[in-house]
Amino acid sequence: MDEIITLSYGSGGKKTSQLIENLILPAFACNELNALSDGAILELDSNKFVFSTDSFVVSPYFFPGGDIGKLAVCGTVNDLAVCGAVPKFLSLSLIIEEGFKLEDLKKIINSIKETAEKCNVKVVTGDTKVVEKGKGDGIYINTSGIGVLTHEFLGKDKIAENDVVIVTGTVGDHGASIMAARNNLVDEFSVISDCAPIYELAQCILQYGNKVKIMRDPTRGGVATTLNEFVEGTEYSIEINEEDIPVSVKTNNLCEILGIDPLYSANEGKILAVVDYSIAESLINDLRNIELGKDAAIIGKVTKNFPSKVVLNTNLGGSRVLTKLTGAQLPRIC
Amino acid sequence: MDEIITLSYGSGGKKTSQLIENLILPAFACNELNALSDGAILELDSNKFVFSTDSFVVSPYFFPGGDIGKLAVCGTVNDLAVCGAVPKFLSLSLIIEEGFKLEDLKKIINSIKETAEKCNVKVVTGDTKVVEKGKGDGIYINTSGIGVLTHEFLGKDKIAENDVVIVTGTVGDHGASIMAARNNLVDEFSVISDCAPIYELAQCILQYGNKVKIMRDPTRGGVATTLNEFVEGTEYSIEINEEDIPVSVKTNNLCEILGIDPLYSANEGKILAVVDYSIAESLINDLRNIELGKDAAIIGKVTKNFPSKVVLNTNLGGSRVLTKLTGAQLPRIC
Repeated sequence: MDEIITLSYGSGGKKTSQLIENLILPAFACNELNALSDGAILELDSNKFVFSTDSFVVSPYFFPGGDIGKLAVCGTVNDLAVCGAVPKFLSLSLIIEEGFKLEDLKKIINSIKETAEKCNVKVVTGDTKVVEKGKGDGIYINTSGIGVLTHEFLGKDKIAENDVVIVTGTVGDHGASIMAARNNLVDEFSVISDCAPIYELAQCILQYGNKVKIMRDPTRGGVATTLNEFVEGTEYSIEINEEDIPVSVKTNNLCEILGIDPLYSANEGKILAVVDYSIAESLINDLRNIELGKDAAIIGKVTKNFPSKVVLNTNLGGSRVLTKLTGAQLPRIC
Repeated sequence: MDEIITLSYGSGGKKTSQLIENLILPAFACNELNALSDGAILELDSNKFVFSTDSFVVSPYFFPGGDIGKLAVCGTVNDLAVCGAVPKFLSLSLIIEEGFKLEDLKKIINSIKETAEKCNVKVVTGDTKVVEKGKGDGIYINTSGIGVLTHEFLGKDKIAENDVVIVTGTVGDHGASIMAARNNLVDEFSVISDCAPIYELAQCILQYGNKVKIMRDPTRGGVATTLNEFVEGTEYSIEINEEDIPVSVKTNNLCEILGIDPLYSANEGKILAVVDYSIAESLINDLRNIELGKDAAIIGKVTKNFPSKVVLNTNLGGSRVLTKLTGAQLPRIC
């Protein structure tokens, strides 16, 4: 590891994993944390809960399709949902930079309120800190969430050969919208973030019970990084087909201009799932009946051809290994 | 309210209350949040839990007697303890500024580990973000915590006339230690922060069952602000006696030099409690048998003389009203 923290350590890719594995896990090792899931499954008096936390530092804090408030609710609620839980309670902690406009704070609070109502979660505890001008960047928000575990069968150890990989819609839209906003390309490309609560999609998938192996929302690091998390350290590989991966024309155009791969661009309203091949077609049909899932697609399958690796079969007939995100392609994405 | 956020909004005093009451509460009103306790009491499948969150932005992040890591664990665990809960699980979310020394991060993580072990809580979920140089101030930490509620009787509605106000030790030490660190007065005054887990003190108090009316740890805004929170909106007043309030000589000297009132200086290892007069003496004796409680004292009582107000009877024989902290006496204290 380096002597100082660079932006790469916050990318959600390799360096973030390094930091967690070398520094955080050795300090706090316990079964709940070691799972490195998006939320910890807790048992309290024989009831099982999921507990998840995320700090949001997205820049800019208003972006096409949402703002840091909407993102802060979706991010944590979505983590609970993909863990197989019904989200119930949220905490809300604000770190505001001196000089922040009250009007902007009101918009953000309102957006938190609306999104929380939509998700049927209650904000039940909070905290507010203010730091001096120049010691922040407008506003940072932490949300932690508690959900009741309803589906206990999820986990990467459930993945088996011939399982199918699905995604619930077009990939890379959140990352693209942030890039457009930062590069003054909003008018030209009109890419909208997919930032949304995915609870309904998760429920749709979970109705297939233990035919569902694992789910994640592919945020920082994008689809490529999350797929790597599914198979790393296992005997399995995931092979995906470029032609099957849904990418919106707008996101694709923007990514090409900026030289960025949509597979590494963040999503904030998508689920990536590994499911038994027997239910894949039926599940895709169900998902397509939900507005948020209309572009759902089967994008690949689990094989034993390249243990622990993710391989992309390209449109040109070749194939290449997709590693986890390296470096900081796009810091401050969420 | 002002048009922009000033540091006063993060002081834990009047402006913070204003922000919460005018903006946050109207958006998220629900019984759990409206209680404005340090933690939300939640019911899930007939079990009761307490959920609490805090972001820590203390400057400097290493200070005499502790660091931001120790503080981040104590702060949230202590909030759970004074709500009458046994702290169980913590989340840990880091916002690190680019360029932060890995060596410092290791010290802080180690301090989190040691304090969590001491408190018998598990860090079960986490998140790491990195922001660009100049968009933070070294490191900010959010911890959220879950505890099991064991004592349900606490609340300001339990306060009655002739109840007694106790504090578990010398007041204002955390605030004083931060001020010493910021003003290069550490060598001269050697004030040590009281930053510590107070679970043992809380348990000692709670053994008196419903003779205990309410407890808080008087952090930002100090003892004066917390006492105001106990009686605001009620028919009761709290009268405290300057001569009975334990203040260490070192903290007192430093506060005099800087023109700060120890009653408004933050504490991070103290409990302020209102208890029935019948148990006060016995409780103080019990507390003094615990190392952290050796300076415990009865500092005042609940009357009806000045409804909703806190009054200090001074050493000079006069008396004055102690309002909530106004303005930002000392930002970035926790």
